[in-house]
Amino acid sequence: MRALHWDGQSLQVRSTYPEPQLTPGKAVVKVALAGICSTDLQILRGYMGFAGVPGHEFVGTVVDGPDTLRGQRVVGEINFACGACAMCARDLQRHCPTRRVMGILNADGSFAEYLAVPLENLHVVPENVTDEEAVFTEPLAAAFEVLEQLPLQPETEVVVFGDGKLGLLCAQVLHSVGARVTLVGKHPDKLALMRGLGIATEMVSRWTAKSVDVVVEATGSTIGLSLAMAAVRPRGTLILKSTVAQEHALSLAPLVINEVTVIGSRCGRFPPALHALAHKQVAVTPLITAIYSLSDGIAAVNRAMEPEVLKVLLRRV
Amino acid sequence: MRALHWDGQSLQVRSTYPEPQLTPGKAVVKVALAGICSTDLQILRGYMGFAGVPGHEFVGTVVDGPDTLRGQRVVGEINFACGACAMCARDLQRHCPTRRVMGILNADGSFAEYLAVPLENLHVVPENVTDEEAVFTEPLAAAFEVLEQLPLQPETEVVVFGDGKLGLLCAQVLHSVGARVTLVGKHPDKLALMRGLGIATEMVSRWTAKSVDVVVEATGSTIGLSLAMAAVRPRGTLILKSTVAQEHALSLAPLVINEVTVIGSRCGRFPPALHALAHKQVAVTPLITAIYSLSDGIAAVNRAMEPEVLKVLLRRV
Repeated sequence: MRALHWDGQSLQVRSTYPEPQLTPGKAVVKVALAGICSTDLQILRGYMGFAGVPGHEFVGTVVDGPDTLRGQRVVGEINFACGACAMCARDLQRHCPTRRVMGILNADGSFAEYLAVPLENLHVVPENVTDEEAVFTEPLAAAFEVLEQLPLQPETEVVVFGDGKLGLLCAQVLHSVGARVTLVGKHPDKLALMRGLGIATEMVSRWTAKSVDVVVEATGSTIGLSLAMAAVRPRGTLILKSTVAQEHALSLAPLVINEVTVIGSRCGRFPPALHALAHKQVAVTPLITAIYSLSDGIAAVNRAMEPEVLKVLLRRV
Repeated sequence: MRALHWDGQSLQVRSTYPEPQLTPGKAVVKVALAGICSTDLQILRGYMGFAGVPGHEFVGTVVDGPDTLRGQRVVGEINFACGACAMCARDLQRHCPTRRVMGILNADGSFAEYLAVPLENLHVVPENVTDEEAVFTEPLAAAFEVLEQLPLQPETEVVVFGDGKLGLLCAQVLHSVGARVTLVGKHPDKLALMRGLGIATEMVSRWTAKSVDVVVEATGSTIGLSLAMAAVRPRGTLILKSTVAQEHALSLAPLVINEVTVIGSRCGRFPPALHALAHKQVAVTPLITAIYSLSDGIAAVNRAMEPEVLKVLLRRV
């Protein structure tokens, strides 16, 4: 089959990559659309030491597996858990210590024509959700994860730093539950997109430190953390969505002095995201910058690396 | 009066320092004992840019103020709040943005014969609590602050890093509510002291990373934070008690990947600490290394800077 393959050194379109085989407990999915995420771009810089087919955002159709699923349009959670450890017993498969992660850790991902996914990871896509919407389920679930970790009261003041894909989704999700959200970013076009949805925005160049209840750090940069730490009120909450892998100079003393709670936040459950898409509570398709065919995958990845770009998708054909 | 005075450059015993005057809303306290805290030692290295009389741990007797308090033995909370702001309205005077802090920020402290304290900050010491115990109220309250921020279930597994004064108090407080506490430190004598109280201990040199529910970082060092981050389980809680003011290299990515909650924790309310002292739920006097007279204050501070030392007290005469 055709697949984008990263060997640890270079990314190539392969036309004869082995198709995934059906094994017990899995289904084979024919990918319709896959999304390129910032994590994928980090992987192509060596993150996680991954080699294989990247990609962990997709929507597709089950072509091989149980009769009940065959022909169904599905999306899939990305953590492949052992099912037997203490974390799995707590229903925290996303934290299974021996997990494999689709396109990130010891498992081929979605930048291919076909993909094998454990059955328990699959979710059927509601009929009224398009492929172009459904492919956002995984990043949207990561935004909803904030609400699983921190139940928000309506009217809570929230500042989201970062107008990348994740920041835009977080701002929308928190806005959808009635929080008073301000999105702080550096791209006028992206901020204008959110203003069109009723979300307050501010250019970071004009931002002055405030003292707000909840701050979400989704800039993906080390500077974002400093901004976020300065913005949160004493006894407030700082949600960390950015995984900034490189070390940087930092003092956590302000967190102690102001008794701030910091919550690291990563992947989320899919059902809240699918529910929000089915009920049109968030607008994801305006985040699509471009759609490339899988065979133009290299160009797609290069495009995704440009700063003004939001979501770049790969279409199977 | 006699007082230890820090002018920003040097520490001196002054014998004619002006006595605090009684002003409305305050009481004047004759200090019996004052405790030297690590924060005081940081102040003598320039922390907070403080100049004046340091010291924020004391027990004494009210000599001037309302009739109901005169002659009473008291301890005093250290944050002098405005009483009018949003934080004060939330009963979070400790986070009042315009607060003065006893011996730390714009207010003379307890390394003196007399001290002026706002009435609302004073707490009468129960009769069965000795002066040598009562002088620990402030640091013990800081240990109890952990329980205000994170209600702990009995049997919760907790690791406390740091066998300094604060670590020893945190370990005892968490042990007193039934948590399964392990104290990790580097001083065999201090660890032995805790084992005598029924608390498990481990030398940091023999420590291997585990995956525990709750980790308390009280080492006061940058290395402690790395150890603590490695010890907490996914979705676990890391309590930061150390204020490490200097910047150091760090990546917070593990907090995001493991969805750890980090809670900055500083000063606490006095009533839980006084209750624990009155009911002998914690043992504080074994932490006293030495008692100096106020006039030997310089020697006392030098002693407090030695690594094996725990609490050094200053006695008025």
